[in-house]
Amino acid sequence: MALIVQKYGGTSMGSPDRIRNVAKRVARWQAQGNKVVVVVSAMSGETNRLIALAKDVSPQPDPRELDVMVSTGEQVTIALLTMALKDIGVNAKSYTGSQVRIVTDSTFNKARILNIDDGNIRADLDKGMVAVVAGFQGVDEHGNITTLGRGGSDTSGVAIAAALKADECQIYTDVDGVYTTDPRIVPEARKLNQITFEEMLEMASLGSKVLQIRSVEFAGKYKVKLRVLSSFEEEGKETLGTLITFEENPKMEQPIISGIAFNRDEAKLTVLGVPDRPGIAYQILGPIAEANIDVDMIIQNVGHDGTTDFSFTVNRGEFARTKAMLDEQIKPHVGARAVEGDSKICKVSAVGVGMRSHPGVASKMFRILAEEGINIQMISTSEIKISVVVDEKYLELAVRVLHKAFELDQAAA
Amino acid sequence: MALIVQKYGGTSMGSPDRIRNVAKRVARWQAQGNKVVVVVSAMSGETNRLIALAKDVSPQPDPRELDVMVSTGEQVTIALLTMALKDIGVNAKSYTGSQVRIVTDSTFNKARILNIDDGNIRADLDKGMVAVVAGFQGVDEHGNITTLGRGGSDTSGVAIAAALKADECQIYTDVDGVYTTDPRIVPEARKLNQITFEEMLEMASLGSKVLQIRSVEFAGKYKVKLRVLSSFEEEGKETLGTLITFEENPKMEQPIISGIAFNRDEAKLTVLGVPDRPGIAYQILGPIAEANIDVDMIIQNVGHDGTTDFSFTVNRGEFARTKAMLDEQIKPHVGARAVEGDSKICKVSAVGVGMRSHPGVASKMFRILAEEGINIQMISTSEIKISVVVDEKYLELAVRVLHKAFELDQAAA
Repeated sequence: MALIVQKYGGTSMGSPDRIRNVAKRVARWQAQGNKVVVVVSAMSGETNRLIALAKDVSPQPDPRELDVMVSTGEQVTIALLTMALKDIGVNAKSYTGSQVRIVTDSTFNKARILNIDDGNIRADLDKGMVAVVAGFQGVDEHGNITTLGRGGSDTSGVAIAAALKADECQIYTDVDGVYTTDPRIVPEARKLNQITFEEMLEMASLGSKVLQIRSVEFAGKYKVKLRVLSSFEEEGKETLGTLITFEENPKMEQPIISGIAFNRDEAKLTVLGVPDRPGIAYQILGPIAEANIDVDMIIQNVGHDGTTDFSFTVNRGEFARTKAMLDEQIKPHVGARAVEGDSKICKVSAVGVGMRSHPGVASKMFRILAEEGINIQMISTSEIKISVVVDEKYLELAVRVLHKAFELDQAAA
Repeated sequence: MALIVQKYGGTSMGSPDRIRNVAKRVARWQAQGNKVVVVVSAMSGETNRLIALAKDVSPQPDPRELDVMVSTGEQVTIALLTMALKDIGVNAKSYTGSQVRIVTDSTFNKARILNIDDGNIRADLDKGMVAVVAGFQGVDEHGNITTLGRGGSDTSGVAIAAALKADECQIYTDVDGVYTTDPRIVPEARKLNQITFEEMLEMASLGSKVLQIRSVEFAGKYKVKLRVLSSFEEEGKETLGTLITFEENPKMEQPIISGIAFNRDEAKLTVLGVPDRPGIAYQILGPIAEANIDVDMIIQNVGHDGTTDFSFTVNRGEFARTKAMLDEQIKPHVGARAVEGDSKICKVSAVGVGMRSHPGVASKMFRILAEEGINIQMISTSEIKISVVVDEKYLELAVRVLHKAFELDQAAA
């Protein structure tokens, strides 16, 4: 008998029919002899509706009160799913974050989980019941309702799985697993049966929206086995989705590259002709960080003639603000020659733990892109990832040719 | 400095504009040196929307889970009102029933309040804050969310006023007080500045929908001063509504009749030719009560020829079921001659504590109706009320002529 935590997102809870389907799925897992805890999101669109309503009343809603309000989204779905379970003969009980208790700090709107009291849920499980828990929410030590911020329901699922020492945390979503790349761009993209945590972290941070990166980090920290599955597969035709493993499977021939990720939300900035002296990187990026602008890639090449060029990328929404800071404040201060910026770029990355033991992945990647006439503007590498910045117009082409070149369309061994 | 509990209903919370208006009103009361606790209902329509959603998922929603769900309606409005208060510089904090704690029994959907812990709210008030409390909801001793049933927000307001020993509980609604009768029927109907609890109970039970009868009973039991006011009066033009007093005002010339109430939701049933023997009333009404049908008026006149006729009224929605029970089950059992029923009736009542000391009110009432050719089908009296059942078509006429005959259109002394 296994203890399974299942997390269902907003689209899985999007209508009465879908909720009844989730209930049937939960019932099947329980009938197979598992203890099941279900963590649910609000119905899709509901959190946005509540936030819009709050903003209709107050332009800048009080953070504590906003949490009181948006936490009702999950309070509705735990009740609906529990009703649906009872209707098909499954003894079940709903829990708000406060009823569990999921104790968080008091950072309203983006609280962090400190501790989960698993006593109530464990007692229910021992009685053969299913516990249905509101995701995304908790309670601070003073009894105030808190929320974990967007995507927090995944984190709730993982945290509850960790607290209960569950055998597996299943994240049900509208896709049936993690793919080698986005199937909307490459129709030959293949579902991965498994992927390592490190790879998943790189894929998630690069824009694969299947899992919230915070929940993956959390799962890694507490060694929770995660599985991504679809809640829309028909009964009897379910697949096992993608398992996110802690160790590279020694029995399996590890592919060199597991996936091609991409991100079109970035913009590039370059400070040209910067005096090549110690401390220059800090003088440029210090003010940017103080302005709360997240910097992703940072490139500085060897200088010549006593000056160098310094490039970095930011979220595209911060492009104008960053450019203005560089022009008006940083350029005169560091004595740079010019500032250039380009918001029409994208980042394409090859991710795979296999590249550790396979030299030549980077050069192959550069060759493939060159053969297509795609100019590489920036390069950044980590142990298991190679990222390049190219003109946005090449995004689909770059992803397609890399996916093919690394044979990601071939079935795994 | 007074401690005031203000309760706002669903129409007062019906839109962002209205919520901001409520916030301004609360701010004015506080600025006048009062400590203010606000109890709110869900936005109008929201509770029905949630119940409909529950029924879309489950034909007979689990009672515990239904309470988890519908309690979110008030959780949204406490947050919205608190945001609006903070926006205009009033320090405020919202409370769910569980956060207060409003402890109830575990009768989901129609729980009864057992105890209110006033510590948290009192501490806030002492800090100069406004406490905004969710009406209609509580929590049982096991931490389960409960609701008080329809109209429960009024009861929450009164119960909190009682627990805090508030100087006054103000019920804000969409009318500006209690009227001598329904102004839609009698345009000359006059707002009463005050009314006794006994009268209010009779008016409420007779269909005056201003206050829930349960909250009036609660206020009477705990000696809470209640005031009914409008939340739609403009700033500077507010009236003091209607105060519901415990004692007849000795300084004031008490009017004989305070109001004319009516109810068109009833139906009349008569069992004819019942053997006139002891126990017959129980044999007729016992099965009706067991079927959970509420009986209002009961009339049995002296018999003749060894038989009597037995009449009573029920809610119109129960008419068909009651008639069937009488026909098929009770008539053969008691050996009655026939069963008659009429759902096209109404009840009109004159209410006033003054009639205790003024004989002749009943005969005056019967004379006025006779002069208009209105046949009286049933009569029932209490110490401060005379009710008659007449054909439904005479409702407006009867109310108008009685209102005029008892001079309710004249300003009070």
